[in-house]
Amino acid sequence: MSKTKNHILKLLFENRNDYLSGQKISDEIGCSRTAVWKHIKELENEGYSIASVHKRGYKLIDAPDQLSEARIRAGLETERLGHRLVCKDELPSTQKEAQHLAEDGAEEGTVVLAEEQTSGRGRLGRQWHSPKGAGIWMSLIIRPDIQINKAPQFTLLTAAAVVKAVKRATGLDCEIKWPNDILYKGKKFVGILTECQAEAADVKAIIIGIGINVNTDIEDFPDELKDIATSLRIEAGKTFDRAEIIQAILKEIESLYKMYMDEGFHFIKLLWESYAISLGKKIYARKTNGDVIYGLAQGIDDEGVLLLRDDDGHIHKIYSADIELSSQ
Amino acid sequence: MSKTKNHILKLLFENRNDYLSGQKISDEIGCSRTAVWKHIKELENEGYSIASVHKRGYKLIDAPDQLSEARIRAGLETERLGHRLVCKDELPSTQKEAQHLAEDGAEEGTVVLAEEQTSGRGRLGRQWHSPKGAGIWMSLIIRPDIQINKAPQFTLLTAAAVVKAVKRATGLDCEIKWPNDILYKGKKFVGILTECQAEAADVKAIIIGIGINVNTDIEDFPDELKDIATSLRIEAGKTFDRAEIIQAILKEIESLYKMYMDEGFHFIKLLWESYAISLGKKIYARKTNGDVIYGLAQGIDDEGVLLLRDDDGHIHKIYSADIELSSQ
Repeated sequence: MSKTKNHILKLLFENRNDYLSGQKISDEIGCSRTAVWKHIKELENEGYSIASVHKRGYKLIDAPDQLSEARIRAGLETERLGHRLVCKDELPSTQKEAQHLAEDGAEEGTVVLAEEQTSGRGRLGRQWHSPKGAGIWMSLIIRPDIQINKAPQFTLLTAAAVVKAVKRATGLDCEIKWPNDILYKGKKFVGILTECQAEAADVKAIIIGIGINVNTDIEDFPDELKDIATSLRIEAGKTFDRAEIIQAILKEIESLYKMYMDEGFHFIKLLWESYAISLGKKIYARKTNGDVIYGLAQGIDDEGVLLLRDDDGHIHKIYSADIELSSQ
Repeated sequence: MSKTKNHILKLLFENRNDYLSGQKISDEIGCSRTAVWKHIKELENEGYSIASVHKRGYKLIDAPDQLSEARIRAGLETERLGHRLVCKDELPSTQKEAQHLAEDGAEEGTVVLAEEQTSGRGRLGRQWHSPKGAGIWMSLIIRPDIQINKAPQFTLLTAAAVVKAVKRATGLDCEIKWPNDILYKGKKFVGILTECQAEAADVKAIIIGIGINVNTDIEDFPDELKDIATSLRIEAGKTFDRAEIIQAILKEIESLYKMYMDEGFHFIKLLWESYAISLGKKIYARKTNGDVIYGLAQGIDDEGVLLLRDDDGHIHKIYSADIELSSQ
């Protein structure tokens, strides 16, 4: 999309509740009113519904539910994150695409989005169901100047940012299940996968994958997920604008990332703990090797490791596991 | 190269000092003596020099100095490392190729080799001079089941393995300069670059890049390297068989890797320290941000971090730096 058309779209989005005069647009952009009119016509052809009223101007009525670069850029309030957007109709996996881009030197803040993932994946190589247009399937590249042992902290940072962003964009209060699931009333609707590329002890890139069931209907889920998964639309009974949620997420990640680099992990940890459901409860932790440890989830340490106190008082450090709340 | 021809070549290499009868080869391989003869002719066409003596058989006189899969496989004594070999005439960088392969699921032990790298790189994105046929430019993929904070230990493991392998294949005693250079009489001839792909706290792959100046001549080096770099040929005054060195390296890495997984980092650390030149000496450490710290190199910790004691007795943990021995 041309830069001018992009800019017009951004103005229309920012003034969705008002009519915006052609003169005002042309002054702001620095082009003729005829040019403005031509761009408006083009936007209409692309699926945007724009009211045009004599002597009042233009007003955006409806936007196509498509994650175009222009749509996300219009209303994006970040300084760096999302300033390069790679939007695709279909990708095997946004995460893999972002990994390749990161290796080839893509700058910090690059975001990869797909309407549909044909082999979306979650933690531990698990499949992630990513039907077309129903959710947000995105991967973000950041390049913090940190040591490799700190990288897992970005899983927690991201989870806290997504909870904040969902609250801001939808009003819904959700919770974090260690390490990387976000639940609403006990059902999962967000998965987070952070991957790291490092050279010796230095982090070169962290690729943050976020999958969110936004407008998924219950019948869209495979049978085995129907009882444990949900979407924002199922919970709130209405359709959400995915672009607004993406904008909110990038904004919140940017803000926590800045806080992290300035002040360290401490505040992120406090914030994360305030959203975590499992802390202070008895849980089962099933490790990747199949071992199950039962105990009290005491907290996380400064590297994001879950600390589990078993009945003998022994503290287990849980780096990677699936956890389940005990009914006890 | 066909599997049978590969096998014949392997037998010839293993019996380099003797004549091997056509009958023995055909029995071992399970093909006719005529088929053996045909394969021998093919090998000769590919540049192998093979003596054929009536009633005695075949003997390998000389092999082309080319890093073919067959050449490396013949004499490779590892259980897993190097069992998939990707040999190319030219690559921008073996490390980048291996990274992409690792992301696409390449199995542990996959090795990428190139006769020439057009944009070979070392630590911190620095260029690595890799002229055609003169050295070993290789990258190895391993997939240890470890946590991310342990990954930097593999830089040290690799350095120790390469010192052992060079000793075994060439008889030369060399030394390690923290973190990843290998020197002979103070001049660098090996660079090691370990990169890691991780998911949250779990390592998915470590890609070990090794660059060795084997048969480089002094005039092959750019001017700025002539005083600080060397090659095995320059030092020993003779040409070395690169395939043998590669085989020795894979063997030594495999052996230390097994020890590491069975017994932990302790023995690797002791071995590494026994080869390190800088320990116990006064050094300057120039960090990537430009800061220089001067002090006594006390040792490394269990994560491979260099411990530097300054004149006030304060211990600095050095994660990433260039070090220089002080003349004091």
